[in-house]
Amino acid sequence: MEEAPHCWPGRNTGLTSLYLSMDDSQASRAGSTSPAASASTASHGSQMEEAPHQYANTSTASDTAASLPESQSEGQNSSNLINSSWEMNYHEAAIFLEEGENNDKFNSHPRDRSALPAYLVTHNHWFYSLDLFAALLLLSLATIEQPAVFHVRRAGGGARLVELFGLFLVGISIVMQLRWLGPRTFLTHRRSAVKGLVTWIVMLIDAVVVISRNKTHFRVTRAMRPIFMVDNRYLGGVRRFLRQILQSLPPIMEMLAILFFILLIFSTLGFYLFSPNQEDPYFSTFSQGFVSLYVLLTTANFPDVMMPAYAKSRWSAAFFIAFLGVSLYFIMNLMLAVVFVVFSDIEKEKFRKLLVHKRRACQYAFRLLVTCSQPSQVSFRHFHGLLRFFRPGTSDRDAFLIFKALNRSENGRLTRNEFYNIYDMCGYAWRTQVPPPPWFNGLPGPIRGCCYLIRRLIKWKWFDYFIYFIIIVNALVLITHTIILSTANIPITHDLHVTWDQITVVALYSVEALLKIIGMGPWHYFRSGWNVWDFAITALALGGIVAEEFADSFFYIVILRPLRLLRLFRVRKRYHAVFQTLVILLPRIVSAIIIIIITYYFFAVVGMEVYSQYDMKNCCVNTTVEQFYKEDNSTLYPDFYFLNNFDNIFMAGVTLFELTVVNNWFIIMEGYVAVTSEWSRLYFMVFYLVMMVVMSVVVAFILEAFTFRMEYNHTVLGDAVDGVSLKKEDLTVIHSAIFDPRTLQQFSACLQNEESAQFEGVGQRTKIVLQRRMYRDEIPVWLSQADREYADSPNLPGSTHSPPGRGEPIPVTLPATHDSPQQTPPSYVGSLNGSLDGGLLGT
Amino acid sequence: MEEAPHCWPGRNTGLTSLYLSMDDSQASRAGSTSPAASASTASHGSQMEEAPHQYANTSTASDTAASLPESQSEGQNSSNLINSSWEMNYHEAAIFLEEGENNDKFNSHPRDRSALPAYLVTHNHWFYSLDLFAALLLLSLATIEQPAVFHVRRAGGGARLVELFGLFLVGISIVMQLRWLGPRTFLTHRRSAVKGLVTWIVMLIDAVVVISRNKTHFRVTRAMRPIFMVDNRYLGGVRRFLRQILQSLPPIMEMLAILFFILLIFSTLGFYLFSPNQEDPYFSTFSQGFVSLYVLLTTANFPDVMMPAYAKSRWSAAFFIAFLGVSLYFIMNLMLAVVFVVFSDIEKEKFRKLLVHKRRACQYAFRLLVTCSQPSQVSFRHFHGLLRFFRPGTSDRDAFLIFKALNRSENGRLTRNEFYNIYDMCGYAWRTQVPPPPWFNGLPGPIRGCCYLIRRLIKWKWFDYFIYFIIIVNALVLITHTIILSTANIPITHDLHVTWDQITVVALYSVEALLKIIGMGPWHYFRSGWNVWDFAITALALGGIVAEEFADSFFYIVILRPLRLLRLFRVRKRYHAVFQTLVILLPRIVSAIIIIIITYYFFAVVGMEVYSQYDMKNCCVNTTVEQFYKEDNSTLYPDFYFLNNFDNIFMAGVTLFELTVVNNWFIIMEGYVAVTSEWSRLYFMVFYLVMMVVMSVVVAFILEAFTFRMEYNHTVLGDAVDGVSLKKEDLTVIHSAIFDPRTLQQFSACLQNEESAQFEGVGQRTKIVLQRRMYRDEIPVWLSQADREYADSPNLPGSTHSPPGRGEPIPVTLPATHDSPQQTPPSYVGSLNGSLDGGLLGT
Repeated sequence: MEEAPHCWPGRNTGLTSLYLSMDDSQASRAGSTSPAASASTASHGSQMEEAPHQYANTSTASDTAASLPESQSEGQNSSNLINSSWEMNYHEAAIFLEEGENNDKFNSHPRDRSALPAYLVTHNHWFYSLDLFAALLLLSLATIEQPAVFHVRRAGGGARLVELFGLFLVGISIVMQLRWLGPRTFLTHRRSAVKGLVTWIVMLIDAVVVISRNKTHFRVTRAMRPIFMVDNRYLGGVRRFLRQILQSLPPIMEMLAILFFILLIFSTLGFYLFSPNQEDPYFSTFSQGFVSLYVLLTTANFPDVMMPAYAKSRWSAAFFIAFLGVSLYFIMNLMLAVVFVVFSDIEKEKFRKLLVHKRRACQYAFRLLVTCSQPSQVSFRHFHGLLRFFRPGTSDRDAFLIFKALNRSENGRLTRNEFYNIYDMCGYAWRTQVPPPPWFNGLPGPIRGCCYLIRRLIKWKWFDYFIYFIIIVNALVLITHTIILSTANIPITHDLHVTWDQITVVALYSVEALLKIIGMGPWHYFRSGWNVWDFAITALALGGIVAEEFADSFFYIVILRPLRLLRLFRVRKRYHAVFQTLVILLPRIVSAIIIIIITYYFFAVVGMEVYSQYDMKNCCVNTTVEQFYKEDNSTLYPDFYFLNNFDNIFMAGVTLFELTVVNNWFIIMEGYVAVTSEWSRLYFMVFYLVMMVVMSVVVAFILEAFTFRMEYNHTVLGDAVDGVSLKKEDLTVIHSAIFDPRTLQQFSACLQNEESAQFEGVGQRTKIVLQRRMYRDEIPVWLSQADREYADSPNLPGSTHSPPGRGEPIPVTLPATHDSPQQTPPSYVGSLNGSLDGGLLGT
Repeated sequence: MEEAPHCWPGRNTGLTSLYLSMDDSQASRAGSTSPAASASTASHGSQMEEAPHQYANTSTASDTAASLPESQSEGQNSSNLINSSWEMNYHEAAIFLEEGENNDKFNSHPRDRSALPAYLVTHNHWFYSLDLFAALLLLSLATIEQPAVFHVRRAGGGARLVELFGLFLVGISIVMQLRWLGPRTFLTHRRSAVKGLVTWIVMLIDAVVVISRNKTHFRVTRAMRPIFMVDNRYLGGVRRFLRQILQSLPPIMEMLAILFFILLIFSTLGFYLFSPNQEDPYFSTFSQGFVSLYVLLTTANFPDVMMPAYAKSRWSAAFFIAFLGVSLYFIMNLMLAVVFVVFSDIEKEKFRKLLVHKRRACQYAFRLLVTCSQPSQVSFRHFHGLLRFFRPGTSDRDAFLIFKALNRSENGRLTRNEFYNIYDMCGYAWRTQVPPPPWFNGLPGPIRGCCYLIRRLIKWKWFDYFIYFIIIVNALVLITHTIILSTANIPITHDLHVTWDQITVVALYSVEALLKIIGMGPWHYFRSGWNVWDFAITALALGGIVAEEFADSFFYIVILRPLRLLRLFRVRKRYHAVFQTLVILLPRIVSAIIIIIITYYFFAVVGMEVYSQYDMKNCCVNTTVEQFYKEDNSTLYPDFYFLNNFDNIFMAGVTLFELTVVNNWFIIMEGYVAVTSEWSRLYFMVFYLVMMVVMSVVVAFILEAFTFRMEYNHTVLGDAVDGVSLKKEDLTVIHSAIFDPRTLQQFSACLQNEESAQFEGVGQRTKIVLQRRMYRDEIPVWLSQADREYADSPNLPGSTHSPPGRGEPIPVTLPATHDSPQQTPPSYVGSLNGSLDGGLLGT
């Protein structure tokens, strides 16, 4: 195993530095090709002649050729090949890391070299955005399709065209995916198959049929549109949440069965007890009693449902108290508890899986970066090559700092254990540990002096207290003003003049913001969420004042006034923790909201298809809900319940929200039952059940997240920080990997005249960091287990099988343990051939 | 330190057995009195001549004197004294252990010997029951006081007399407590002081005033009556729950403040947005808007509150959705999360405190049981003496088994570490490990054969399946029958004939129960909760059938029919866990219910005092709630809301339950606002807040308990078991302590001819067992900390100070560490003198 064509120049521990490139190239010339080395990795000649690691296909070796006197023209070709191989390896390693990060299965890898362009096109923010745009476009169709929100001329035809366009865009992504996955993998990939082959085809056929018949029909397929949305790469959180809901379903079903059973028993009981009472409409028949108790489960008809029986016998209250006590207060809470426990378990399992998956990704990536002679260590050059693909935006300085931070042994090479931390370190923002001088340091004397004074002022504690005082006074004045206005019975529309107290307060707010921006520097000021909050409110207030003064025709501007009160939250320090938690949880709350919106969309489309034809005004004559739907003015205030309908997607949304809140939902249900049939109950009852499940999971999620957060609040606070010191010796290492003279200059500037410069990486504490702390006892067990599994199958996904003939089929035989040196770089084509065709699909 | 008067006979590791009593008595004679030995513990003579440890004042030494040939008449007197001392020590140790178990503070100890009778009288199930009776009597007064449920003749005077009687009973317990605590300790004991000196006196004065004036006045003091109830010894769980609610208050208040603030902002916004709309009654003034949004927080007026604004502009839905989203779905859940976290923390802290407290109690008790010569070990004789007071019902056999189970080192003496487990071991039920033969083993041949067959039958799995099948068929038949009855429109009152299918099913149930009782034996059958459940339902069904057949005048007997369905729960094994959990949690659920009832009682009394004078029938003319209170028959069905009133304690309770469920609660509130004043809102709003807090805690409790349980469900199942083997040698040990020949015979019978007999102790898995497992990492830390504290103040509560002159003031100087031998038995009088007068009150 003498060949070591791709060894890092500084492998001799950097003592002979800088000129080791010569040694190295000699060593590589002396090396013989290994038996396992593939044709594409034939390693004649020095790799030092390579261009500074640009993409292989650009290969601009000319500009640095002068610095490499030993370049051998006969090695040029093979060196290019090697370069290209390395680039491929970097790229594949980056893909592995990305897959680990996104928790994608490794079998969604591009199947071979030819599939790579399709993979790259689809794994790209432009493409993701396009996909999202197509999904949103399809969703938004509901606003112009019948029953439409916006009545556009020729909306029907336009909607069809837009629909076809949206489906075309979605189709592109499906074809692309088919291209890089290959049809067989595609079909095994369940989500893709469902999305591509079922939904898409069905919807396309449906759209075409509608266009050809030129009139619309009962189109419930529209309710499936959110599937495209959920499938978008950006909505991974939503998918995870959805999966959690599905996983929580079995225990919820158990509890629902108990609930249903209790409902049945009480219905029977209620029928026996109350049906003799002719004045009781709620239990006249068994099914009526069942519906009454189902509604009572939501408390929506309490105490009305009890009153006729209660009027007859006071003891009948016991029946209802028992029912509510058992079903609502006990079983429902029990269900929440069950969901909560299941949810916590799922969270833990998810965390474990992601952790193991990331580790596996690191293992795969690591193996693509080592050389034959150093099979267990990665040099900075290859690490840097990886980062160019994995985190394209990383500057050379940060890349080296990440490398240094990872390399705890400080020997200039990463072992696999060190490499495992790459995800954390790549998430950090790096800066010099010495705080930079204030921004105004370079200004002329007097101004600088002023700025220093301002800086001292805003750091004075009484400054904060003064601001708090202003905020509280403002709140009191505003509320007093409103109360006075309210009791004086002046029409508010006349209250649009701007008073001096408002101007004073807003002016004070503005001055405060200005002072803080000057004192802290804009960069520092806007880094704090609370400052952004203050600034936004101040800006809004300022805008509101101006608008009130000059554009008093637009009345609703006054709603900006009470918004100023939101600054009150800042006063109480304790609330900071709550809001901080909120910010950390925001992504997942957004996921929950998207899930709810998608559910709404589904039910709204179904509801519109079924119910939008009915006009609810003055409906339901001679039913118990008649009065709610009356339009007349005989009562003091009309009830307007006819507005709770499915006339367009937004009104349907509001109606569904009312059903979610469940109060008085039975009025809406009874209304539609009266105009259609008893079967309408199914729609409303199913919606209630679905929302109950979704809301249970959402509540369990909020509970879980907050309890989790609060328990760790006192142990872990602030950002995660990692310190790195840059030393003079490091420059040689950098020099060997990065040939851009500007970068080197930058590094030298950092060091200036000192021996070393301190940097620190600052990363946010995400939930994962907290979880890692929470499960610190279990993580080693999980990881060692994962490592054992890896050791059992140490090859790249499926690469043990000899690949069938596609591209250049080169058998890749990786050693079984990591102690023996591996051939490097393993052919990209070969390994991937093996990985997908031979391996995963075969298993 | 040569004296060792009260050493255990078998201290020489039991090898020389049985006759060591001689050695021992010689040793004690040889011993000299220690300088610290008190007068009452003067240790001349052998203690082996004592009667077999009966209470000192009965002292019947004669019957066993024959077995103790070494009895010396000159030592008789001092021996009696010693005996009496030991009895005192046992008694005090038992009191310590009880205090540890009940989590009472150690300063509620009887202050001296003369206080002991009072202590014993009050710490006694008869007295507790009397106290509870008095409390319930006072509470039940609300049913006959105006406004009364039961209109008894001369109820007013009777009620006063009953009240005085109840107060008299409560007074007795206060006086008793004063007696054994002494006035100063009494005053520092907060709960007692509040109960005794404030509530009791106030209520007594109030009652006397009412009697003397001979007419009732505004008596809100009645609302304080639950205090006596809560103070009862049996309601420790309720007190703990109450304390937890109080401890959860601060964080709840924080969240309520946020909620209030959000309410304020939205009220202002709502006023600006909606008050120009003349048709919107909900936001006409600022305060009206505030009330509307407060009610909306409970969702009770949704969507009505939105409809007028929604009718004018569709966009106004956003305001309400935002409000509900933020306040109801976010802040309320956040509050639940906060309460949940606080509750979990409190549970943990409570567990820690109880654990430490119990350990401290063990330490105190242990020190009262050791002898001078063996200051770190307790012999069985003294342990047995302790058990006679601590667990009076324990048989001698069980006492010895407990001792053996504790004594893991098997050297015949308990160290303190072994002694710590006394609480667990005393909770176990002991039985021989070899399962006893079936009960019918002794019956004549043919019957026994039959019984064996039955036993095999009921253990056959198809037997169970057959029963399940019957249950399901029964359920289906019953529901089908009900549905047919319901659709056929036959008056149910005619459906009282017993059909053959019912008789068949009930007969099958009865046969099943009978077979199982025969097969398993009644004892085993009724040990399973599920069997009791089945049996109860079967018995009820049988009773119901009989009643329907013979007494068909009483119609409501039919409700027993659906109850049979409850057997369905047995079918699904998964539900067993849920119900098992329920049973374990039952005590705490009962506590929660009592808390709710007490809260109801308080508000009901206030409500009755304030509102019972108003007749709500046809009230509220020209208000929005007018229609709900109409009594006329113009509408299809009257609303009967006038029944939701405070006319007597039970109707008030139902009204408050309706307010708890919150649906349509504003109708009741608006009704009373219309007949009284705006200030009535205070009562209803405060009640809502209080119930919200209580219900949050109850929900948090259910959540906590179930999540806790479910997490440990898979790790710990079944009962806790501890095995003990009884050996031949043990007989000698027993003989030395228990002189009752029957006991010895019993033991011998156990052993029969074998060398050893196996016993096992079986205890229920209470929550404490689970908690001990959960916090297994932290418990050693807590305990070592507690032990350190104990080592810092190793004396009995406060006994370091020299006591003032009461009784026989003997300075008790206990050594500072446990290595040096302690004088024993420390004088009861002296130690307690020191403990209360000198010590705790001084600190």
